[in-house]
Amino acid sequence: MTIDPTGAVARWWATDVSHMEPGVVELRGRPVQELIGTTGLASMIWLMIRGELPEPARAALLEAALVAGVDHGPQAPSIAIARMAATCGVGLNSAIASGVNVLGDAHGGAGQQCVELLDRVLLLEDEGAPLAEAAARAVAEGPRYVPGFGHRFHPRDPRRDPLMALAERAAADGVVAGRHLRAGLAVEAHLDAARSSPVPMNIDGATAIIYAELGFPAPLARGLFVLSRSVGILAHAWEETGQGTRNKGPIPRAVLPARLSP
Amino acid sequence: MTIDPTGAVARWWATDVSHMEPGVVELRGRPVQELIGTTGLASMIWLMIRGELPEPARAALLEAALVAGVDHGPQAPSIAIARMAATCGVGLNSAIASGVNVLGDAHGGAGQQCVELLDRVLLLEDEGAPLAEAAARAVAEGPRYVPGFGHRFHPRDPRRDPLMALAERAAADGVVAGRHLRAGLAVEAHLDAARSSPVPMNIDGATAIIYAELGFPAPLARGLFVLSRSVGILAHAWEETGQGTRNKGPIPRAVLPARLSP
Amino acid sequence: MTIDPTGAVARWWATDVSHMEPGVVELRGRPVQELIGTTGLASMIWLMIRGELPEPARAALLEAALVAGVDHGPQAPSIAIARMAATCGVGLNSAIASGVNVLGDAHGGAGQQCVELLDRVLLLEDEGAPLAEAAARAVAEGPRYVPGFGHRFHPRDPRRDPLMALAERAAADGVVAGRHLRAGLAVEAHLDAARSSPVPMNIDGATAIIYAELGFPAPLARGLFVLSRSVGILAHAWEETGQGTRNKGPIPRAVLPARLSP
Amino acid sequence: MTIDPTGAVARWWATDVSHMEPGVVELRGRPVQELIGTTGLASMIWLMIRGELPEPARAALLEAALVAGVDHGPQAPSIAIARMAATCGVGLNSAIASGVNVLGDAHGGAGQQCVELLDRVLLLEDEGAPLAEAAARAVAEGPRYVPGFGHRFHPRDPRRDPLMALAERAAADGVVAGRHLRAGLAVEAHLDAARSSPVPMNIDGATAIIYAELGFPAPLARGLFVLSRSVGILAHAWEETGQGTRNKGPIPRAVLPARLSP
Repeated sequence: MTIDPTGAVARWWATDVSHMEPGVVELRGRPVQELIGTTGLASMIWLMIRGELPEPARAALLEAALVAGVDHGPQAPSIAIARMAATCGVGLNSAIASGVNVLGDAHGGAGQQCVELLDRVLLLEDEGAPLAEAAARAVAEGPRYVPGFGHRFHPRDPRRDPLMALAERAAADGVVAGRHLRAGLAVEAHLDAARSSPVPMNIDGATAIIYAELGFPAPLARGLFVLSRSVGILAHAWEETGQGTRNKGPIPRAVLPARLSP
Repeated sequence: MTIDPTGAVARWWATDVSHMEPGVVELRGRPVQELIGTTGLASMIWLMIRGELPEPARAALLEAALVAGVDHGPQAPSIAIARMAATCGVGLNSAIASGVNVLGDAHGGAGQQCVELLDRVLLLEDEGAPLAEAAARAVAEGPRYVPGFGHRFHPRDPRRDPLMALAERAAADGVVAGRHLRAGLAVEAHLDAARSSPVPMNIDGATAIIYAELGFPAPLARGLFVLSRSVGILAHAWEETGQGTRNKGPIPRAVLPARLSP
Repeated sequence: MTIDPTGAVARWWATDVSHMEPGVVELRGRPVQELIGTTGLASMIWLMIRGELPEPARAALLEAALVAGVDHGPQAPSIAIARMAATCGVGLNSAIASGVNVLGDAHGGAGQQCVELLDRVLLLEDEGAPLAEAAARAVAEGPRYVPGFGHRFHPRDPRRDPLMALAERAAADGVVAGRHLRAGLAVEAHLDAARSSPVPMNIDGATAIIYAELGFPAPLARGLFVLSRSVGILAHAWEETGQGTRNKGPIPRAVLPARLSP
Repeated sequence: MTIDPTGAVARWWATDVSHMEPGVVELRGRPVQELIGTTGLASMIWLMIRGELPEPARAALLEAALVAGVDHGPQAPSIAIARMAATCGVGLNSAIASGVNVLGDAHGGAGQQCVELLDRVLLLEDEGAPLAEAAARAVAEGPRYVPGFGHRFHPRDPRRDPLMALAERAAADGVVAGRHLRAGLAVEAHLDAARSSPVPMNIDGATAIIYAELGFPAPLARGLFVLSRSVGILAHAWEETGQGTRNKGPIPRAVLPARLSP
């Protein structure tokens, strides 16, 4: 007797992402052997998430955004954590997972929140507001930290300009529609005018614009950032492995944490 | 007074992977703005791990291996875990981390172990053994499961042939030296002859050969597999998010786990 | 020259939880040697979180709640994930972490949300509403799933009655004030009257009442549940380790996941 | 038609740890309502792992060991990581998981390795070696870091003496057999004599002796340490949550990581 006569067990794990049979690996309906050697990694990411292969110009834009976010050094908790994990006697997989796990709402979620902000700007515009007013209203409705704008370290994030240049060229060429780009620039202009200190677009904002232009829903801005930052996390964990430290703490061993209460 | 007059705190987190100053993001010594839009994701992975950009033909071989391993469906614990995690009220980052975390010695470590096996074969050959004998001896010394060979599901892994074809072409073109490829084929031939049931090369073996040919040390076979499989993990976690299930268990709710002891 | 002359580095990691000097381990200001052998685990949990040791009757109530939540079998994603992780070649620590990681808003957050609900009921009562009305209004304002009430598996959660009996005795004895208990029972009574099918208090609700009565803020209902469920997660991961399975998937190997789209 | 006519799906998740039916929660064969309010947390841990309730004196010894290991401050990677994670916008569950995940071979595995060392000492003694010689040989066979002995921070770990006093009393009272205790003291005496600087027993060694005396296999020394340290991890993550920092890096923001290469 078959162990799954009703098919309920097979359906519990039903998926359109991939399909396996003995000797067969289909990814989004395509035999894997047709993809190996013909398909770039950025296109593969697109295919796996969305079910179809992208046009080359769109894949290239995605790839640029993924490249831009790979690392921001050990002052980022994700990187420091992965490096410390790598000294604790776990595999590289667990060191990477430890870093990825903290790309939460505050560390990896700004892109997602920025797409939501831009979607809100565009909804207000669709309802009749001029773009500048829509941007101002969407910012006013949101949290004090405007996601995707401002950086406590960089006066101007060096990743902003090259990403915006690529997005603008893609919009000019009709590769993307350019609406989220316009919305993002309107938010940036509003913040420039409204705040005493500059709050320019940062990496999260610039990549959020690109991901949204390419049609990825907001949560995938976080998901794609995870793939991007995983590259830096691996590189740092691997470098740390080579240093030979065991159980690396956050500060030199000679410094003991202070008491919080006086 | 400066808070780090001796530099010991800065040195505690010293790294060559990246360097930040206000307005500056350097990745392996290169300003990020020079990399965005000019560098593919596979080349970026290479650069971040190894400190230099690869030749295009070598980047393409790396990219093919990364594409090949993205997914093997929900019967893989990493995929099932990420899908379940995505229903538990955590962010996509934590769902992905949950999947990545289990790419341990048994699930994600075969590539690393296979590189070590092939290194052993080549060492024995360097010491004078004919290649076939070196392969037989290295297999005999190792564990019962020969890492990188055999698959409990696929009689022949459909990812083997396209990857080996790429590796062979790369060796023929002088893109790689071809020694690990020869060693891997020798192990495969030995297993074909020595075992009653076939034990052909699997995805871990084929990618291990490529990573080793490209000069990545054994632990990075695992690290690179993590990056590759993260793509499938994200795609599955995202698909599951769209299904609306809460707290998805491993089997349909109507089936209750049995008692282990009779 | 000292490496931290301003103390800024020591202060970056300032804590009142513990203090170390060579030969000294102080936990919440108490030498560890005074705690070992004199202090129970539940009291230690209380001390570490809150900075003071509890009265024995309050520690006993905490302990009962912690005991109640240790396990609900492999249909819970946290348990299934830990068991699968244990077969993938990672340490017990990573298997446990994999399970704990998914105790998110949907899986481990109900207690926290229930405390927030009960706090809301009590605020409405403080503002003058009769308790029954306060409960009805707080429920009406909240999500469709009332956190802490109802169970898709148990018509009546067998952990409810013993926990409520302990809470009621503690309230009668003046060990706790009993306000959250009254609020919880009022919510239960309201749901009994308002819904067609019964929605009795579940483990999350019963423990949330106890944690809140003991003065733990809402997020710690989740934190304490993590400690509690970790016991079951460890027990299951360990049992699975003894089964010898490698890379355990979610369903028997012979069943292949179906296609999601027809 | 039933969806699991052969029972294979139910058996795939078979367990003796717990059993659920509607209205029934059995833990190790005991109805949960009989355990709530009657059973301490340490006894519950024992029951869940081993299937039977311990004698009170044995539960008390387990409890003392669990209490001893809860925390060693933010210089421990597990603690620092959990504090950093708590600032990144993930739930307490994920902050705790991030800390637990790094209790790997180097950070949380010393207890497990120490039990293995003591088992080896006792095996050599069983084979006829005098205890002191057995200890010397087992140490000589092992790694340079003798697991469970020596501490880079404490000249003498303040947790050693109270734990050893409890273990000795338990042995004197016949609560435990005392063989692992003798083996541990023999290793300590050997190291005292053999090494130029003192290498006294540390927390991992002292708890390993107790866990082994109580009959827990070596891997559970790690598993139990995870439960113990989870208490401190939660306390630290919760304290950090109250500080309001976002994306806490490892060192004060003003200090930038140095370059590794000159």
